[in-house]
Amino acid sequence: MDQIYNFSAGPAVLPKEVLQQARDEMLDWHGSGMSVMEMSHRGKEFMSIAEKTESDFRELVGIPENYKVLFLQGGASSQFSMVPMNLLRGKTKANYINTGQWSTKAIKEASRYCTINVAASSEKTNFTCVPTQDKWHLDPEAAYIHYTSNETIGGVEFHWIPDIDSRNGIPLVADMSSDILSRPLDITRFGLVYAGAQKNLGPAGLTLVVVREDLLGQPLTGTPTLYDYQIHAQNDSMYNTPPTYAMYITGLVFAWLKNKGGLAMMEKINITKANLLYDLLNNNDFYHCPVAKADRSRMNVPFTLKNPALNEEFLKQADNNGLIQLKGHRSVGGMRASIYNAMPIEGVTKLVAFMNEFANQHA
Amino acid sequence: MDQIYNFSAGPAVLPKEVLQQARDEMLDWHGSGMSVMEMSHRGKEFMSIAEKTESDFRELVGIPENYKVLFLQGGASSQFSMVPMNLLRGKTKANYINTGQWSTKAIKEASRYCTINVAASSEKTNFTCVPTQDKWHLDPEAAYIHYTSNETIGGVEFHWIPDIDSRNGIPLVADMSSDILSRPLDITRFGLVYAGAQKNLGPAGLTLVVVREDLLGQPLTGTPTLYDYQIHAQNDSMYNTPPTYAMYITGLVFAWLKNKGGLAMMEKINITKANLLYDLLNNNDFYHCPVAKADRSRMNVPFTLKNPALNEEFLKQADNNGLIQLKGHRSVGGMRASIYNAMPIEGVTKLVAFMNEFANQHA
Repeated sequence: MDQIYNFSAGPAVLPKEVLQQARDEMLDWHGSGMSVMEMSHRGKEFMSIAEKTESDFRELVGIPENYKVLFLQGGASSQFSMVPMNLLRGKTKANYINTGQWSTKAIKEASRYCTINVAASSEKTNFTCVPTQDKWHLDPEAAYIHYTSNETIGGVEFHWIPDIDSRNGIPLVADMSSDILSRPLDITRFGLVYAGAQKNLGPAGLTLVVVREDLLGQPLTGTPTLYDYQIHAQNDSMYNTPPTYAMYITGLVFAWLKNKGGLAMMEKINITKANLLYDLLNNNDFYHCPVAKADRSRMNVPFTLKNPALNEEFLKQADNNGLIQLKGHRSVGGMRASIYNAMPIEGVTKLVAFMNEFANQHA
Repeated sequence: MDQIYNFSAGPAVLPKEVLQQARDEMLDWHGSGMSVMEMSHRGKEFMSIAEKTESDFRELVGIPENYKVLFLQGGASSQFSMVPMNLLRGKTKANYINTGQWSTKAIKEASRYCTINVAASSEKTNFTCVPTQDKWHLDPEAAYIHYTSNETIGGVEFHWIPDIDSRNGIPLVADMSSDILSRPLDITRFGLVYAGAQKNLGPAGLTLVVVREDLLGQPLTGTPTLYDYQIHAQNDSMYNTPPTYAMYITGLVFAWLKNKGGLAMMEKINITKANLLYDLLNNNDFYHCPVAKADRSRMNVPFTLKNPALNEEFLKQADNNGLIQLKGHRSVGGMRASIYNAMPIEGVTKLVAFMNEFANQHA
């Protein structure tokens, strides 16, 4: 197969160097004679992998000691329950910002455990923007404030961290599944951050949680043991067998990120990649991007063709050019190019060239 | 590294052919240009993998249509909560059989959701046998009967399926994490069977559940959405992103099992392997196996040295001979040889030869 570029929204492209290393180590990790999949999670070999994975992540982000890093299972959707089950801490209300389909799902699940105050919503504009903070109506009695930093489906991203006193006031919680590690992150602004791995971190089946430790230890009655962050924190994510191979691959991605120059460098590259696409969308009225310019995602770029009758042809020709997985989410249609950290700039350049050519052909 | 034999209790050895195929397909699955890890779970490539994985499993076991096969996350420990949360169905009691550490954990977690009747326990004999069914005191009002078909730590296995009318009476539920697919399985005798993948199926991070569909749809109030079997059943295990790569590897293991002759053949081989070890333990009083002969596990063979001062030397020499991960569970000490489906008979033969030689040297 010739080089392809995979624009899937997740599970998504991984760095080629990571896959090559995983291939080379598949049957024999570092002379151990074992695949990483075959290692006891409590053996010295895997323990060394787990420790390096966590320490590289802490180093990349700059995470202080009073934050726990948890390697869990279940996907970001499991966090939609775990967040209220753990963070209500005797309170009965929570603030949510609704910016799209993932926020909506988080709200729906949390509403089974508490009263939700939707402090702001962009639903009226079909989720094409982020509500500015001056329009938020926060309930001061609420246990926490939850938002989705990047809406994978809508392509709407917060390019700012809400100005909330997370330490003395209400803890800020963010679902960062689709933009974590795409830029520097000041974790001290948050009480808790979570992310499913399968977009910017590694394979599906691993969920990363970073949580300030003083928030732990007051789960709702009836919380399943494995939904209690404290249990995982006390056991270094080894209360039960963690998803070891997914942790290993994610660790390779962290090492790759360090090697690439860390998060500040990734942000520069991600801005460059996103601008290539958005410049085209701004300057070619064959295509349309519905998202407000200030809130356009650097990770997921949704766009439509002015003439939707050409959608099938666009996807077919893209495919023939090795540009795959560009079909928009089934709920919104059109196209979506997901350009996470692991998407090389060459992939975006090639996509832009193809889009220009396709527009010229069919204008 | 020379050939090693890995006796880890889990995550555990995988068939070499499976790892070789995974290595060869790592960067390009079937000419798609993608790693399986990079595929959208809703794309045609991964859908074909998921469908084959399920159909091969159904074929191997012989699963009728009224049973759902679910590919979940969370490990068997998550099932300790999910079973009562889903199967109580308005009742308030459940029967459990206690045969060791894993049964005990299941009981402890379930007791948070209902009243537990421990219908039988082998605790008084230090969990070295299975209580025969004539000694069970079942509560007829209970919602289900739970047992652990193989205790990974104690090395105690049920070589019989309890004679329970699962259809018209109380559904039988089994944790088969460490012996699933080691022998033929009449699933119609059960209401629900579950297994963490990392012993006999594939990598950690995947949990398999087989459940009779008429038992679904009555979760406890407050059950997290992802802990509701019905949600997963209605969405073919794709309500959210499943652990795709772990499913792929497990699918390769299923194909390997079919190629090896299926479960009847695996049972023959497993009996042969287990007998090699137990014959030695019976005939050499340098070693001791604490488990009652009728209930000895074919999967996990625990044993001690008469002289525990030799433990370190035994493990060191074993290691030097490429026989690794033989140390017993930290809670019981001694040794444990886990000899799952993927352990070749040559590994057991080599272990037995080493044990005889070590005994001769130190007798």
